[in-house]
Amino acid sequence: MRTWSRSLLSAEFSVAAFRPSGVITLTTDFGLREPFVGVMKGVIHSRAPAVKVIDLAHDSPAFEPLEAGFWLARSWQYFPVGTVHVAVVDPGVGTERAILVVEVQGHLLLAPDNGLLAPLAAEGKLDSVRALGFESLHKFGIDVVSATFHGRDIFAPVAAELAAGRCQPQDLGTPANIAHGGYQPAKAERNLVEGVVVAVDRFGNLITNIERDMLVGNAWGWAVTVGSRKVELRHTYGHAEAGEYLALVNSFGVLEVARCEGSAFEGLGVGKGAAVRAVFTPENAPKNAQN
Amino acid sequence: MRTWSRSLLSAEFSVAAFRPSGVITLTTDFGLREPFVGVMKGVIHSRAPAVKVIDLAHDSPAFEPLEAGFWLARSWQYFPVGTVHVAVVDPGVGTERAILVVEVQGHLLLAPDNGLLAPLAAEGKLDSVRALGFESLHKFGIDVVSATFHGRDIFAPVAAELAAGRCQPQDLGTPANIAHGGYQPAKAERNLVEGVVVAVDRFGNLITNIERDMLVGNAWGWAVTVGSRKVELRHTYGHAEAGEYLALVNSFGVLEVARCEGSAFEGLGVGKGAAVRAVFTPENAPKNAQN
Amino acid sequence: MRTWSRSLLSAEFSVAAFRPSGVITLTTDFGLREPFVGVMKGVIHSRAPAVKVIDLAHDSPAFEPLEAGFWLARSWQYFPVGTVHVAVVDPGVGTERAILVVEVQGHLLLAPDNGLLAPLAAEGKLDSVRALGFESLHKFGIDVVSATFHGRDIFAPVAAELAAGRCQPQDLGTPANIAHGGYQPAKAERNLVEGVVVAVDRFGNLITNIERDMLVGNAWGWAVTVGSRKVELRHTYGHAEAGEYLALVNSFGVLEVARCEGSAFEGLGVGKGAAVRAVFTPENAPKNAQN
Repeated sequence: MRTWSRSLLSAEFSVAAFRPSGVITLTTDFGLREPFVGVMKGVIHSRAPAVKVIDLAHDSPAFEPLEAGFWLARSWQYFPVGTVHVAVVDPGVGTERAILVVEVQGHLLLAPDNGLLAPLAAEGKLDSVRALGFESLHKFGIDVVSATFHGRDIFAPVAAELAAGRCQPQDLGTPANIAHGGYQPAKAERNLVEGVVVAVDRFGNLITNIERDMLVGNAWGWAVTVGSRKVELRHTYGHAEAGEYLALVNSFGVLEVARCEGSAFEGLGVGKGAAVRAVFTPENAPKNAQN
Repeated sequence: MRTWSRSLLSAEFSVAAFRPSGVITLTTDFGLREPFVGVMKGVIHSRAPAVKVIDLAHDSPAFEPLEAGFWLARSWQYFPVGTVHVAVVDPGVGTERAILVVEVQGHLLLAPDNGLLAPLAAEGKLDSVRALGFESLHKFGIDVVSATFHGRDIFAPVAAELAAGRCQPQDLGTPANIAHGGYQPAKAERNLVEGVVVAVDRFGNLITNIERDMLVGNAWGWAVTVGSRKVELRHTYGHAEAGEYLALVNSFGVLEVARCEGSAFEGLGVGKGAAVRAVFTPENAPKNAQN
Repeated sequence: MRTWSRSLLSAEFSVAAFRPSGVITLTTDFGLREPFVGVMKGVIHSRAPAVKVIDLAHDSPAFEPLEAGFWLARSWQYFPVGTVHVAVVDPGVGTERAILVVEVQGHLLLAPDNGLLAPLAAEGKLDSVRALGFESLHKFGIDVVSATFHGRDIFAPVAAELAAGRCQPQDLGTPANIAHGGYQPAKAERNLVEGVVVAVDRFGNLITNIERDMLVGNAWGWAVTVGSRKVELRHTYGHAEAGEYLALVNSFGVLEVARCEGSAFEGLGVGKGAAVRAVFTPENAPKNAQN
C-alpha cells in the first residue's frame, strides 16, 4: 500500500502538548438503527462525563472510508481547537490494520489507516502521525477488546482519555505513515482540471475533489463537464431555474454539480467516481459574469 | 408573494428582553449522511460552549419548508422559555430571500422567509417579526458567508449569539412581514371542515391541518373522508383491529388518519396534499361514543 | 399473555435507593424525520436541565418491540450505573398495556410491557419490576396525557424525575410481572444450538439470539447453518475474502452471520425469524483453528 512520506508533513513531530477542548466528534458508517453509536457515547461518558460528544455523520456509505474522510477533511476546522475527531469506517476491523492518531493545528483525529485520513493528508497540513500501540492501551485501563467493534472498545475509550486530558498522542504510539487507500487528488494544469465525483449528497448534488484554488483566474471562464454533460458555473443554487443544472464552488470549497430544486444524481445518471473536467475558456467569462 | 400584515400579530413589538434558556433546537432537511448538521453544531459550540443543542428533525423532506414549518409550529412549546429554534429548509439559499427572527411567548425562531414560519404565523401568536440585516452581522463577528450554506455561516452563529445572551432580536434587524409561501390553513364551517394532508409520518400516518378545535360539538359525531375513503374517529390506535383504518386527534392536536399497526399511506394510496373532509353527522354520535 | 414469574428474578425487591448518574438513554421507533424524539428531549430538559440525554436507537423497525428489546438488553451495561434507559416501541399506546419500571444492577429501564423487556428478563438479572401507577404521576406534576404519545407525556417526564433524583421506582408503582410478548430464547443442547435471526443490522449482518456461552467447548468445532446455507465460524470480518460468508461471535456476545464487505441479508435471501442451527462437530476444529 502506498504511503505519504513523513517528509511531506508540515512538521514531523509536534512539541506542544495537546490541550483538549472537551469536545469529541464522531463520524461512522454505523447508522442509527442499531445502538452502535449510542454505546460508543456510553463508553465515552462513563470515562469522561464532562466531555461533549457531537455527531458529525453516521449514515456515511458503509465500507467507504474515502468518502467519510473527504467530509472529515472539510469539517474538523469548524470545531474548537483541542477537539478529538473520531472516525470509524472500518471494514478491516480486527485485522492487522493500524489505528492512527493524527495532530493537525491543535486538533486530534483518530481513524483506521485505510485511506480515511488520505484526503486530509493530501492537503499536507498534518503535524504528527502515530500508530496506536495496542499494548500501550493497558496503561489507560483499556483491556477488553472485541474483534469486531473497535469503535466501542478502542476508539471511544482512547478518545475519552485524550479529551479528558489524561493522555497525549505520544503516550499512545509511535510515528507512522498514512496509507493512501486509493485516494487520488484532482490534477490541475493551467487551463484544465481533472477530478472525480467523490460523494453524492442527500440532495443529489455531485461533490467533486476539485478545489476552489484550482480554478484560477476568472472563475466564470471555466466550463465544467460531468460525464458527457456540460454545465455552467454559477454563484448559488438560486441562480438557476428549477430543474436546471449548474456547477458551483460549494461551501466546503470544492466544485459541485447540482440541479436547481432537484437531484443532479438522478437527472444526469452519473454518480461517485464519475470524471469531472473543468476547462478554462476565457471567452465564456463575460457571458456568465453577472451570475 | 402574499404576506400576513403585522396587524394580525398579537403584539407588534415586544418590549421585554429575550432571556435565553441556553437551549437551541435545530430543524433542517440536511439529513445525517453528510456532516452539515454536525458542522453547524461545531460553529455553535465554538461561540457558545455552554449552550445545549437539541435536534428537532433533520430528515424532513428536502426543499419542503411548509412541512418542516408545520412540525416546528407543533413542537417549540415543549422546550423551555428562552429557547432559540433554528429551522433551515432553504431551497432559496444565496438568493435575496430574507431570514426572519420571530418572537413568540419568550421563544425565538430563526428561519428563511419561504413559508416555513407560515403555519406558526397562521395561529396568530407571534410577538414580533424581524428580517435579519446582513450588515448588522459584522457587529457579532459574523463575516465569512458562503452562498450555499447559510445554516453554518449565518443561522448557527446568530443562534449562538442569541442563546449566549450577547444580542437581542432588535440588534439583528427591522420589523418585517412573513411570507405565506403557499400555506393554506384548513377551512372550518359549522358542520364541515375541509383540510389537507400536510405530512406523512414515518409510520405512514396521514397528518392533516385540521385542528382539534375545529371539530366542535360531540367529537364522535364527525365522519372523516380522505380521498374517497371514509374512516371512523377513534380515541387511539389501539382502539381498532390490526389493519383497520381510523381517524384520531393526535398528540399534536390535529386530525390524523392512521391504520392500526400498519401504514395508512401505503394502504390508502393517498399522500401529502390529499383533501380531507370532516362532516358533522349527529346521528353517528351514539354509535361511536364508546370508542 | 405468558409472563415470567417474579420468583425468577434475582431479587424480588431491591432495597438500595436508585442513585441517578444524570444520564438518560432513548430507544424508540420514531425515526428522526418528525420531531417526536426532539420533543421528548425538550420535555426532559424542561424538567431536568442538567441531565444528559444519549440516543441509543431511533430507527428501530416500527412496531417491533422485541428487536428494540434485544439491542437494549445488549447495550445498557455500557452506560454508567445510575442511568435511566427509556424505550418506546409501543404499538399499544393508549390501551391498557402497562408501563414497567425495572431495576437491574443499579440501572433503571422504562418501557411498555409488550415484550420489549423480555430479552433482558430472560437473562434473569432483574432486581425489581414495577408497573407504573398512572394515578401516582400526579404527585410529580404529570397531568396532561395524550392517548397517542406517551413518549412525550409519560416516559419523558417520568425519566426526567428519576434522573433528577426526585423520585424512586417504588414511588411510581407496584410489583408486577413482565410479559413475554412472544420472545423465545435460543435452545441449547450439548452439541446442538437452535436459534433464530432476531435482527438484520445496517450492514446486512444477520444477528441471532445464540449466545457465546451456548457454543461451549472448542469454538472452532461448531458448524453454523442459516436457512439452507452452511457458513464457517471465524474470528472477525477481516478473516475472510470479500464476498465470502462467515459466522462469528459478535461484539455483543451473540452469533452473527455476515458477508465480508457485503450484505449477508441480500446475498443469502434470509432475514428476521430465519432458523439458525449450530452443530458441534469436533473434526472441524483443527481445520478452522487458525482463523
